[in-house]
Amino acid sequence: MEFSSKLLEKAVAEMSQLPGIGKRTALRLVLHLLRQPKSQTEQLATSLHQMRTQIKHCKVCYNISDVETCEICASHNRNAQIVCVVEDVRDVMAIENTSQFRGLYHVLGGKISPMDGIGPHDLKINELIVRVKKGEIEELVFALSASMEGDTTNFYIYKQLKEVHVKMSTIARGIGVNDEIEFADEITLGRSIANRIPLENALKF
Amino acid sequence: MEFSSKLLEKAVAEMSQLPGIGKRTALRLVLHLLRQPKSQTEQLATSLHQMRTQIKHCKVCYNISDVETCEICASHNRNAQIVCVVEDVRDVMAIENTSQFRGLYHVLGGKISPMDGIGPHDLKINELIVRVKKGEIEELVFALSASMEGDTTNFYIYKQLKEVHVKMSTIARGIGVNDEIEFADEITLGRSIANRIPLENALKF
Repeated sequence: MEFSSKLLEKAVAEMSQLPGIGKRTALRLVLHLLRQPKSQTEQLATSLHQMRTQIKHCKVCYNISDVETCEICASHNRNAQIVCVVEDVRDVMAIENTSQFRGLYHVLGGKISPMDGIGPHDLKINELIVRVKKGEIEELVFALSASMEGDTTNFYIYKQLKEVHVKMSTIARGIGVNDEIEFADEITLGRSIANRIPLENALKF
Repeated sequence: MEFSSKLLEKAVAEMSQLPGIGKRTALRLVLHLLRQPKSQTEQLATSLHQMRTQIKHCKVCYNISDVETCEICASHNRNAQIVCVVEDVRDVMAIENTSQFRGLYHVLGGKISPMDGIGPHDLKINELIVRVKKGEIEELVFALSASMEGDTTNFYIYKQLKEVHVKMSTIARGIGVNDEIEFADEITLGRSIANRIPLENALKF
């Protein structure tokens, strides 16, 4: 693509570095901004700048936060003895939306993925070990994705903590509510048979 | 969605104002930026800011440009007697890519679209009339999309200029090169029969 303006070219190049945004989409977005009032671009640029420079991570759970200790960790209404281990802030948001979990979180910041060059030391795993070894946590609930990387991460943490007195569980994997059995993939269906649960538990809701 | 950080929420809100980007995608993009070096966000914010505040429109053709008169209008190797009327900079880029047009452009900045509240006065139509009336242009080639809005815009300009001594043409509409006849829509196929061209012209390439 040949641009009639270096400024336009630069903006498109930067925009197209975002995941899933190619050159054409980037050009469409940038041209849209050009048609909108200047204030919109100003606000976008300022909010991105402020977000990137001022955002903090909670010093307890490493979730994204504006303050040193996030709202959830600072709350007196949460059960500090049960901690849910998640990949990133989106998982915290998804679990909070269910209103089914009243414990705290630990945000790893990703999962172990040798293919992407992410090892245990790139994640907040050591911080989790230290946090557990303080002895105040009774149960860790792992809520990582049911992928190879998620399982690897679960297993790595499990090995590090198996000598420590802490209960470890993982969220249930199985057929989703309202999903059709016939369309479920074999692995999920197979696991859901192997890990079947007492009927009275399933009827609770 | 409930965010754990106001800064994050603001950045996502601004990002999701872009067309085709919902809240979820915006969050994914913003979290991506958080994982990348600070410099990437800085460069994105700066380039958007500079683009929006410093970009100019060529005073002759209204194409996006870094200078008063764009490269194409300033070039001595272009034929200033033939002007191609297009909607926006993307069309200029597409036509330039073909290397088939050596004239100048006139960028309207959109097409007449009452549904979107865009009338003739929101576009550079008056500027085109003034430009043509100077008497240096011999032919206008309309390259607007073959939609209701494109045709309306063509017709509006045609009416304004029919008393003026200038040739007006539109780019050929018909079956695309390599397209299968059986899959062409009826209107395109019908028009391509009505506007058939001498075989020797079609064999030129």
